[in-house]
Amino acid sequence: MHGSAFQPLTVETLPERLVRVTAVAEHVGGTGSSWRVREVGDGNLNLVFIVEGDRGAVVVKQALPYVRLVGDSWPLPLKRSFFEYHALTRQEKRAPGQVPAIYHFDEQQALIVMEYLSPHIILRRALIQGRQLPRIAEDLGLFMARTLFRGSDLHMETRDRKADLALFAENVELCDITENLVFTDPYFSAPMNRHTPELGPVVAELRADRDLKVEAQKLKHLFAAKAETLVHGDLHTGSVMVTESDTRIIDPEFAFYGPMAFDVGMLLSNYWMAFFSQRGHEAEGSREDMRAYLVRVIEETWAIFREEFARLWRTERRGMLYHRSLYEDQGDALGAEQALNHVIHDIWTDMLGFAGIEIHRRILGLAHNADFESIEDTKLRASCEAAALRFGRHIAVNRKHISSLAELDRLAKSLDQGL
Amino acid sequence: MHGSAFQPLTVETLPERLVRVTAVAEHVGGTGSSWRVREVGDGNLNLVFIVEGDRGAVVVKQALPYVRLVGDSWPLPLKRSFFEYHALTRQEKRAPGQVPAIYHFDEQQALIVMEYLSPHIILRRALIQGRQLPRIAEDLGLFMARTLFRGSDLHMETRDRKADLALFAENVELCDITENLVFTDPYFSAPMNRHTPELGPVVAELRADRDLKVEAQKLKHLFAAKAETLVHGDLHTGSVMVTESDTRIIDPEFAFYGPMAFDVGMLLSNYWMAFFSQRGHEAEGSREDMRAYLVRVIEETWAIFREEFARLWRTERRGMLYHRSLYEDQGDALGAEQALNHVIHDIWTDMLGFAGIEIHRRILGLAHNADFESIEDTKLRASCEAAALRFGRHIAVNRKHISSLAELDRLAKSLDQGL
Repeated sequence: MHGSAFQPLTVETLPERLVRVTAVAEHVGGTGSSWRVREVGDGNLNLVFIVEGDRGAVVVKQALPYVRLVGDSWPLPLKRSFFEYHALTRQEKRAPGQVPAIYHFDEQQALIVMEYLSPHIILRRALIQGRQLPRIAEDLGLFMARTLFRGSDLHMETRDRKADLALFAENVELCDITENLVFTDPYFSAPMNRHTPELGPVVAELRADRDLKVEAQKLKHLFAAKAETLVHGDLHTGSVMVTESDTRIIDPEFAFYGPMAFDVGMLLSNYWMAFFSQRGHEAEGSREDMRAYLVRVIEETWAIFREEFARLWRTERRGMLYHRSLYEDQGDALGAEQALNHVIHDIWTDMLGFAGIEIHRRILGLAHNADFESIEDTKLRASCEAAALRFGRHIAVNRKHISSLAELDRLAKSLDQGL
Repeated sequence: MHGSAFQPLTVETLPERLVRVTAVAEHVGGTGSSWRVREVGDGNLNLVFIVEGDRGAVVVKQALPYVRLVGDSWPLPLKRSFFEYHALTRQEKRAPGQVPAIYHFDEQQALIVMEYLSPHIILRRALIQGRQLPRIAEDLGLFMARTLFRGSDLHMETRDRKADLALFAENVELCDITENLVFTDPYFSAPMNRHTPELGPVVAELRADRDLKVEAQKLKHLFAAKAETLVHGDLHTGSVMVTESDTRIIDPEFAFYGPMAFDVGMLLSNYWMAFFSQRGHEAEGSREDMRAYLVRVIEETWAIFREEFARLWRTERRGMLYHRSLYEDQGDALGAEQALNHVIHDIWTDMLGFAGIEIHRRILGLAHNADFESIEDTKLRASCEAAALRFGRHIAVNRKHISSLAELDRLAKSLDQGL
């Protein structure tokens, strides 16, 4: 396949095109003609195939030269597959075992062959169903701490970090999606926006909210300019696959050098949205337990993230930032702890901002969350969404003056009950 | 000369090597044999020749594969010439007429042929002599506002900004010099440091100052991670050439994508050092007028920078940040003014931090300033330097709580008088 022009795979052509790729044949087993191939891409951008054979199964993900959801009127470079591949290999090194194993990458065909995760399901789906996954707080807290710390100048050789910064700086189009759809469009009546009709008055209120609009743009400024570490770039509950005992992070095609707080804020905001959506899913019984679970997950995720980040700070801080020569080597370990407090505090503050903005764009922008979308009664849905919107506005605008998740737990509950 | 291996020029070889370069021959005039060539490089890094002929003169600047000051034990890539050339062309576009005109660039020979500025002298030299240049505040305030604003996502197409970010991300070694010599070495007894012997007690005090060391590293973090605009990267008074009526900015080989506040802080700190050094140059008469002049220059530079930045904000804000669609286009011009206040406030705060650190490294690190170095009486010099060091510590650590230059004028005067 190397060297030939890009051609999208189909269920029919996949076996003959991949059977000679050793890494694929070995994992699937048998001859191509015995493979069972399904196309399961439910995302907005790519083709995703599950290929099963005598020995096992693999996932084949192929980019298309446009946004699948919209069609070829919205072109999108195949090179996003290259960024996804390079992000996956770096994440595997920094947080071993937390992303799917990669078997094969074909840059020209924009195609990645990877581990088939089974019986994993998408975390968002599980949370909508009211399932309480026991491992997500720990696994995702560790994943974020390890990838964000180890991809930064706290840990890497600066030369390598800058080479990676330059490599991922070319991921312009996917960053552009975030820059527009997350940080800008929700705050005015942009053409691709949509929202539940009953939200009209709240939306008008938010779009007239000067402090919010200034804060959203300051966060965009931070997103665009703070090239601190290799972020996943799209770390919501739809990018996580889970079982009771395993958690895997997928789809890092939005990866680029950005602020540490971005991944953390996006993940926690998706838990908060899950929280505010539960009221829309109570037809078959109370979701009180589920809300309590989500509050615990948010608290534990942050706590685990903070602890692991601090552990790495103390044991793996060998990059050029906050170097030991200035602290520990001068007998001033407390100086390093002081700096750690400041760094974590900045992540906390910015994380709240990114979380608030992410909530807004998922309710006012183009790409909505199934958590709310699956609530059919639009009046009920709008009531859940309005609480989430107000919560998002509060944490984005007041992020420098909020000190604890305990304050926010209380606020979320009050808003959910119609404060 | 194209295609041949790098060879350093000498006064003898220069004419025959450059006479066939049309751009040079045209500006100098005559045949190579009639050219008068002088080597005048007084900097730490490069060869600099002045070439004069019948028609005029040019400057030829050539990088060497090592630090000239130290020798080949400290290698430094020739590619810095490439970054200097690309920075100069961008600065010329963004702030026309404020950098030397470029006649020729030879990447392989790491050689730039540019306008010979005459009768310009280095600004630092003029300030040491007690000369009051009438144009520097306005010219440098405008230069900073224009280059910093127009090189950022406030003005540029994001795609172009990211391509430039990637291009300059390769300027690793020169950033590394700043990262180590400016932000780290001064705060512990690094091998290349030196300081006036009488400063011993103050130096010990600063190196034991935990808050200062944490702040210095937070500023290093900002320097390394805030890829906001193309900064000059070495904008001190030795990088400015002046006459009474003209101001030119030279030597941007340290250029990279960094925080706007860095250039501003470095420039103002060099004025503050000039201020604190005046007491060491009073043997031939009071420098009271000169101190008052420097205080005015600092205030005016900041005021001009702020005004021009605000003018560009209102008239040329067409990049993706703080986009008009969210403010002016919704009839909320005041929202854009609010955001401007926040952005300027952040530049102010960070500028004070970078200024404080720059003062420290010029007194405690490897590369000292002639302002202080030319004071022969080491006791007098140490007294000037100690006041500057204390001032630097104060503004770096308290930068978030200082609101005006008026406060700092008063503080500088008190410290200079032995507070």
